[in-house]
Amino acid sequence: MSFKLTILGCNSAVPTIEKNPTAQLLNADERFFLIDCGEGTQIQLLKNKIKAQRINHIFISHLHGDHYFGLIGLINTMHLLGRTRELNLYAHPKLKDIIDLQFLASNTELKFPLFFHPIPTDKEKVLFEDDSIIISSLVLKHSISSSGFLFKEKKKTKNIIKEKIKQYNIPVSAILDIKQGNDFNTVDGEIIRNEELTTISDSPHSYAFCSDTTFVEENINKIKGVTLLYHEATFMKDLQEKALQTGHSTTVDAATIAKKAEVKQLLIGHFSKRYNNLEDLLEETRLVFVNTSLAADGETYDFDTI
Amino acid sequence: MSFKLTILGCNSAVPTIEKNPTAQLLNADERFFLIDCGEGTQIQLLKNKIKAQRINHIFISHLHGDHYFGLIGLINTMHLLGRTRELNLYAHPKLKDIIDLQFLASNTELKFPLFFHPIPTDKEKVLFEDDSIIISSLVLKHSISSSGFLFKEKKKTKNIIKEKIKQYNIPVSAILDIKQGNDFNTVDGEIIRNEELTTISDSPHSYAFCSDTTFVEENINKIKGVTLLYHEATFMKDLQEKALQTGHSTTVDAATIAKKAEVKQLLIGHFSKRYNNLEDLLEETRLVFVNTSLAADGETYDFDTI
Repeated sequence: MSFKLTILGCNSAVPTIEKNPTAQLLNADERFFLIDCGEGTQIQLLKNKIKAQRINHIFISHLHGDHYFGLIGLINTMHLLGRTRELNLYAHPKLKDIIDLQFLASNTELKFPLFFHPIPTDKEKVLFEDDSIIISSLVLKHSISSSGFLFKEKKKTKNIIKEKIKQYNIPVSAILDIKQGNDFNTVDGEIIRNEELTTISDSPHSYAFCSDTTFVEENINKIKGVTLLYHEATFMKDLQEKALQTGHSTTVDAATIAKKAEVKQLLIGHFSKRYNNLEDLLEETRLVFVNTSLAADGETYDFDTI
Repeated sequence: MSFKLTILGCNSAVPTIEKNPTAQLLNADERFFLIDCGEGTQIQLLKNKIKAQRINHIFISHLHGDHYFGLIGLINTMHLLGRTRELNLYAHPKLKDIIDLQFLASNTELKFPLFFHPIPTDKEKVLFEDDSIIISSLVLKHSISSSGFLFKEKKKTKNIIKEKIKQYNIPVSAILDIKQGNDFNTVDGEIIRNEELTTISDSPHSYAFCSDTTFVEENINKIKGVTLLYHEATFMKDLQEKALQTGHSTTVDAATIAKKAEVKQLLIGHFSKRYNNLEDLLEETRLVFVNTSLAADGETYDFDTI
């Protein structure tokens, strides 16, 4: 299935005119998952022509404002525009109180069910799972509790070749069986080998989001081999000590995780506002892990091309 | 003194790419008062080249999100940029809990004193007063408790003509006396008439902010003769019933208040998103009160030219 990530914001701490605080949209086969929601995210969705009402699952990494101050406005807009479909929110428990208090103050009763799914801060948890995707939290290390997110497309069934359905008069009831790798017996008793009926599907896509966090050795195995890793790189390596003090990563931290986890591509973001030239950060990261890109607001990354 | 109002946002309910939710900045002789703070206000301040750290007083009319969802982000940014000067926040009591809860969740201890001044919901109150300005709340009528704000420059002392100080050798100790309208006795016993020493000052400026609210007859006397009245006009007059149901005003409501209060100029805003052509609203308002303008994001109104 198609897997596309759009960066709605990747700045750290303080928003600027050009750069928004953290928010990302993962489009998994036209299902929209929102990751973090800094102030102004609803406007970023409009600018990127993404309909907010199509988002049914929102994941908030931690409760620093640059990762969630836009959430209450987005939910309020969904309500005012007449949403009725349920919305699932995955976050640390205190966020529920923050939302409830604000809607209480405005005497707002949401017109749609808002299901709050608390993320444990001390262990991984499967947050959402269906036939095609499994989404888990990761435990990050930051100045306050922080969680990463791992999106893994499930192993795909094979694709059946449409012409063969007609050619061998295959009934609908047999298709799932064939997609699962079995041969097909025709009404005449002829055995058609599975290889003739199906094409090999692409390898499943996967995406790991790690922000905000220091270097966490324990997560390397958990994100092993993902297609794309977004990892914060707030500082360059000369500020390693500051990174540790503030619970952030350097370029080299991010690159080392990517290298050890053997990910296909690394995307770095959440840059400190002290850096005017982000190419310096990119260069330093690439010295450790070559296939790295700089996250940029409005950019979309298609996993089929990674 | 100079008195200038900059509109940072004047949209109702749902923000759009072009129009921000409510926020205004009143610059009274280089003292900055922020009125309401919808999502994205800090970016609007940047776009209008207004330094957030110069704002020492923030007034929030009511707790619907389009009037305050940007406040927590603005305060957070002031903190992250190292503010030490006190900030005064005037709002309904529940807003304090909302702010406290969010800073508790992020383990943030503000580096500056944040003084919260609760606005009573059932009566007017002087919120701030010094030698040059007095700021009071007004009681509005909306679907939840809502307050207006009245900014009145105090009656000015006269301006002393600098050349006369030298000419008559006027000591510093006598200047305040002359500014208050008294004559001056020279060392030779000569009486110099006050009219020779001073110029007549301009009439004091005043500004009334009324949003969100229905038509409130009782406020007409309170805002009598203000230089500028900002009054919400969410709907056109054919939606009078809807306006009453939702606690809003029509163009005619706003114009009637302006006419009866004999204000110099009316500024209407908080338009429903149903209206594509705001000129229709302007035209309808002007039929009742001619000197009306449409509020627009980024526009500045200089009270000296009203």
